[in-house]
Amino acid sequence: MSERVAVFAEGFLHTSNGKAAHGLIRYGEREVVAAVDSLHAGRTVAEIVPYAAKPVPIVATVAEAAALGAQCLAIGVAPAGGKLPPEWKQALLQALALGMHVEAGLHDELGRDADLVAAAAERGLELRDLRRVPDGLSTPSGAGLGVQARIVHTVGTDCAIGKMTVTLELTAAARAAGQRAVFVPTGQVGISIAGWGIAVDHVIADYISGAAERLVLDGAERGDLLLVEGQGAILHPLYSGVTLGLLHGCTPHALVLVHEAGADRIDLEDRGGPPGPVIPPLAELSELLLRLTSPLRPAPVVAIALSTRRISSDDEARTAIAQVESETGLTCDDPVRFGAERLWRAVESGLA
Amino acid sequence: MSERVAVFAEGFLHTSNGKAAHGLIRYGEREVVAAVDSLHAGRTVAEIVPYAAKPVPIVATVAEAAALGAQCLAIGVAPAGGKLPPEWKQALLQALALGMHVEAGLHDELGRDADLVAAAAERGLELRDLRRVPDGLSTPSGAGLGVQARIVHTVGTDCAIGKMTVTLELTAAARAAGQRAVFVPTGQVGISIAGWGIAVDHVIADYISGAAERLVLDGAERGDLLLVEGQGAILHPLYSGVTLGLLHGCTPHALVLVHEAGADRIDLEDRGGPPGPVIPPLAELSELLLRLTSPLRPAPVVAIALSTRRISSDDEARTAIAQVESETGLTCDDPVRFGAERLWRAVESGLA
Repeated sequence: MSERVAVFAEGFLHTSNGKAAHGLIRYGEREVVAAVDSLHAGRTVAEIVPYAAKPVPIVATVAEAAALGAQCLAIGVAPAGGKLPPEWKQALLQALALGMHVEAGLHDELGRDADLVAAAAERGLELRDLRRVPDGLSTPSGAGLGVQARIVHTVGTDCAIGKMTVTLELTAAARAAGQRAVFVPTGQVGISIAGWGIAVDHVIADYISGAAERLVLDGAERGDLLLVEGQGAILHPLYSGVTLGLLHGCTPHALVLVHEAGADRIDLEDRGGPPGPVIPPLAELSELLLRLTSPLRPAPVVAIALSTRRISSDDEARTAIAQVESETGLTCDDPVRFGAERLWRAVESGLA
Repeated sequence: MSERVAVFAEGFLHTSNGKAAHGLIRYGEREVVAAVDSLHAGRTVAEIVPYAAKPVPIVATVAEAAALGAQCLAIGVAPAGGKLPPEWKQALLQALALGMHVEAGLHDELGRDADLVAAAAERGLELRDLRRVPDGLSTPSGAGLGVQARIVHTVGTDCAIGKMTVTLELTAAARAAGQRAVFVPTGQVGISIAGWGIAVDHVIADYISGAAERLVLDGAERGDLLLVEGQGAILHPLYSGVTLGLLHGCTPHALVLVHEAGADRIDLEDRGGPPGPVIPPLAELSELLLRLTSPLRPAPVVAIALSTRRISSDDEARTAIAQVESETGLTCDDPVRFGAERLWRAVESGLA
């Protein structure tokens, strides 16, 4: 796709809520020509978010992004609850007035806002709702258990700690090793990167597992090793339902557990909440996940992906990784920092 | 509410799909003056469904129900996928023509059918969609943990084994014991009985826990002991997501585990599926539920409700109950067969 994109992350580019922007810049196939965030205007995204890895210019306004050639404005922030903050609406209307398509993964669908619909229609522009649910979903039929493909699923100890990134890095490593590996997107950022998928958190609650099964069936048409992006966390008080419905619905053979080094609680504070629930020891969490999957198809945790982004030195990162290995007896690595080959080999041998 | 109701269960009154009709007759506060099912016309509901417990006359047509004074026609069947079968629509139009309100808990909302909307508007009648989701839902804020009310939640080893019934019977027993007890409805049948609630399986997946929290906050305005109806089962491959989101979202202090005597697998066969996943021993399942709730607020299973409906003799039912008690060390009883007082006392002491 040759479309040039600007990501909108006003006030949030440096936060984990800006993960949609970060992912689009790091992994998206389209060129990102600007990030809109007046808080950091004049710098580059890589300076603010090393993970994004590209020197995309940060501008203060949508007009500046348009001047840099952006043809589409993609909302790069995942606000809690997926609501469209009223103060963003003016920016979206401006983007449409400047001839840009608008793309978002909010629960508040753009296509249901009469003002945005009218503005887009007037200019013949698209409002793209990445979380819009396909027709015909229902509860699972059990067909997912019958696909030939091997299925690996990432699960996390919290939200926004890099499950999608780990899934993408493992997919690339598996492909490099000669596998027909497929990244299976289950959220709006993954969908914007891969160009297909279902935002399983946006379907009718009764259909979470059915949506996950549909993704497995679709993924099996694309390759024979499926890496299904996880959502939420099994003990997360906001999102655990989506996590478990996805876990059961995608019928994995093996799990990769993603953890943020040093985190001992689920982080609710950036949502204005109190300190979140304690995260149990990783070995205990792995056993809990195995017990939840066992009646349907046992899915052992075969490797741990550790995010060491908050640790500055490589040596200390290696120490944190070694500690997890000694605690759990499993291979652990940070695929962003040290590459995903070693983690992939652990997954491969776990699937054997 | 003094409204007189007719339940529509054409062809399904004798099946478990007719559970909405059965529940309305057994527990509803409104008088049910007729059940419409031409298959059983001329008999009474109690003859066909002993559980319903009332000699409501069964008639063949909506017109006969109107002649018996019905002011509202409530659809008492939960058809596959929550769709409105086309052959029912004529009956609903006839009900409206005869001056009756129409009430249903389908995924296909009555209010989206132009013919029904026009017919209702013409006569100033109501179309009541019990599964319609209230505005303004989102993820939980954590406020549920702060309510003064004590919260008891029913969880099951499978679907359609009587969680709602157990919840209603426990509510009645607690009231009889002097508690300000509130039945908190989480599904369409419970909503039709109690006249409020949210069908948590119908909300956007991300909002399951938020909907459950909203119910707890609303329930706490109504009393100080909340009995929150469970949905699905934590190991159910179709519905586990709803189950866990509800479990975390309603922040219970204690759980009552509902089980069908003798069931060793989740029943997928009535959906045309293969034999379902094995149900683990009840003590193991209780421990799993405790581990899932512990990081947020530990919710021990404090009693087991056993459905013995498939056991004909009371003696054998008592043997099955005693066996569960010896296996689990918990009080077990069948509140439909033997009354809920004993179970309520176990819950009360579990809450202490």
